[in-house]
Amino acid sequence: MDGVRFLLDLTILLFIAKVFGLVAKRIGVPEVVGQIVAGLLLGPAILNIVTESDFLQQMAEIGVMMIMFEAGLDTNLDEMRKTGIKAAVIAFMGVIVPITLGMVLYMAFYGFAGPGSDQFLQGLFIGTIISATSVSITVAALKELGKLNDAVGTAITGAAIIDDVIGIVALTLVISLKGGSGSANLGVVILKVAVFFACAVGSGLLVNRFMHWLDDHYPHTRRMPIASLCYCFLLGYIAETYFGIADITGAYLAGVVLCNLSDRDYIERRIDISAYMVFAPLFFTGIGLKTSFGSMNTKLVIFSILFVLVALGAKVIGCGGSALFLGFKKKDALKIGIGMMSRGEVALITAQKGLAAGLLSADFFSAIILLIIVSSIVTPIFLKRVYSDG
Amino acid sequence: MDGVRFLLDLTILLFIAKVFGLVAKRIGVPEVVGQIVAGLLLGPAILNIVTESDFLQQMAEIGVMMIMFEAGLDTNLDEMRKTGIKAAVIAFMGVIVPITLGMVLYMAFYGFAGPGSDQFLQGLFIGTIISATSVSITVAALKELGKLNDAVGTAITGAAIIDDVIGIVALTLVISLKGGSGSANLGVVILKVAVFFACAVGSGLLVNRFMHWLDDHYPHTRRMPIASLCYCFLLGYIAETYFGIADITGAYLAGVVLCNLSDRDYIERRIDISAYMVFAPLFFTGIGLKTSFGSMNTKLVIFSILFVLVALGAKVIGCGGSALFLGFKKKDALKIGIGMMSRGEVALITAQKGLAAGLLSADFFSAIILLIIVSSIVTPIFLKRVYSDG
Repeated sequence: MDGVRFLLDLTILLFIAKVFGLVAKRIGVPEVVGQIVAGLLLGPAILNIVTESDFLQQMAEIGVMMIMFEAGLDTNLDEMRKTGIKAAVIAFMGVIVPITLGMVLYMAFYGFAGPGSDQFLQGLFIGTIISATSVSITVAALKELGKLNDAVGTAITGAAIIDDVIGIVALTLVISLKGGSGSANLGVVILKVAVFFACAVGSGLLVNRFMHWLDDHYPHTRRMPIASLCYCFLLGYIAETYFGIADITGAYLAGVVLCNLSDRDYIERRIDISAYMVFAPLFFTGIGLKTSFGSMNTKLVIFSILFVLVALGAKVIGCGGSALFLGFKKKDALKIGIGMMSRGEVALITAQKGLAAGLLSADFFSAIILLIIVSSIVTPIFLKRVYSDG
Repeated sequence: MDGVRFLLDLTILLFIAKVFGLVAKRIGVPEVVGQIVAGLLLGPAILNIVTESDFLQQMAEIGVMMIMFEAGLDTNLDEMRKTGIKAAVIAFMGVIVPITLGMVLYMAFYGFAGPGSDQFLQGLFIGTIISATSVSITVAALKELGKLNDAVGTAITGAAIIDDVIGIVALTLVISLKGGSGSANLGVVILKVAVFFACAVGSGLLVNRFMHWLDDHYPHTRRMPIASLCYCFLLGYIAETYFGIADITGAYLAGVVLCNLSDRDYIERRIDISAYMVFAPLFFTGIGLKTSFGSMNTKLVIFSILFVLVALGAKVIGCGGSALFLGFKKKDALKIGIGMMSRGEVALITAQKGLAAGLLSADFFSAIILLIIVSSIVTPIFLKRVYSDG
């Protein structure tokens, strides 16, 4: 049979990811950082032993969905209710500040221009790209630290979910301002988001009831985790295909829907084993695999470095600042700001849409990938440091 | 992001496979039969909701490798030593009888011809296709019955592994008789097989020692099952890529190498959860998904039906008969004959090689697929019946 190459890729990725993960832990850095570095090392950026493939990307997607589903399962609903409004404010400021700073940075490099001009819209778009937090890295890091579902953890996760939605609205707004092929009606987008959440909650009540019934009749059977995982995949698929919302948001919500089952721990244990054995390491190494440092000029290098700093700082200022304003302690506000720093595939997806709409040059992709890499590596490290400081 | 269709496919396949598996169990049929039927229903043969894709095939491949690796882990080495010679005899007769009967059947339909003619070689090739047992279905069924590692289970597994090797030699022999593009030197093939087993045993001793060391220092840690799985993937990759031996044979041998670790149950549990949550159902539904009953004429239909009967009967006669001759009880000989009936992807791979070498018409593919389907469904059912009869 041809095409068993993927077995070799899996062997190399899983083995090196585990080794690097263990080394990372040994030197006091979260395991996921080791896995990302393993991907960087094995990918086109350095050794070029493993090439990103559709198969690996889909495995990685399953991995990130499992991580988000587990984060949803871990939800403390009471805590969520308490932090709901606060999370929304944090999320909102975590979008406004990066958009503003990103726009200013772009214009400082490529010329200022008034509202309505293409230059202005391109700046606005650069800002929009850095507005969406990718919570999966943070969730994995918080989980490793055992701090996922306290007040701060819940605020971060909640804010990141809301931020995803605001990000979609902002993206649609910018693209519809530009007009042309990529445009969409802003009202329709907001409606879609509202309908999705209504559907998710409505169907969630039914699914929750069904799963409770299943749990009462067949506790601790394989059908529990399998049905849960199917629901996670389905809600992710529906979110992305019919509502333009990231599949991982669907996966997270699926977890929230099932978070009060009495078999919750049983389910989570099985998903967790499936995740750490194969899927999750492929997600984290996949971030590194995507990276190559190709054609860069000096201006772009300087822009990229500042772009990363602005993107990271903007979240700390926007989210951390608003958390402080909302009454979180200084330390906790910093944790929230840092927790919101990580960026992921949503930034890349946004960038791809901007490219299609003529709002972004392909040259900026390496800056975005650099941001994803750097934020994925420094967020867990900073988080661990700020938590261990007490 | 485009291409989240695979999430929907996973949802449908995993959910329907579980439902059908539960229904199968309820009516007293092994769960894997329900999963195969689920694939048939969802695939092009009936509803055409899910289409086979590279992704699903690779997931299925991981599934069957996990199943074979677990079978290897379950090996009782003492039992294996005791049944080694017997297994070899059973395997040998399980190749000779199907090749002979398959050739007779083909010639009865398409004309007799003497040795050396194309007609003769084509008949010989039809026989070769049905010579390779696919043990994975049987292993799954025996596991469900809790009978995998008694004398009969070990004889079946051992014979099926040896049979795979004899099948490769037979395939190479037939193709080299034909000459042309697909030909290979028989001596080289036998040498390759010998070298592979020597390497597997040699490296196995090293890996076994390394894993024992790991086990002593870090018992019950994630690195144990992850390293084991990596070894399974690697040996499967090496077997298939460098030695032309099925990857599942490599996976099985990897399991045998690790079967005396004290953390064996810990490792197997984690592989098992990964398998049943996602991968294994995709392997079993995948068999059904591959099936479509396209262009069939009456002669081919009749040939196909007889082909299936001959293929099943030949294993019962060849393996069951030789088991009886070797002193197994009548009942146990029947179990061995039935256990060796199932055919799988090796038959398809053999057929593809024959197509490339001009030894087989594409028309016969539907007959081979029918054999895989029927044998996959009836083997577990018959096995369960013969075991429950006492």
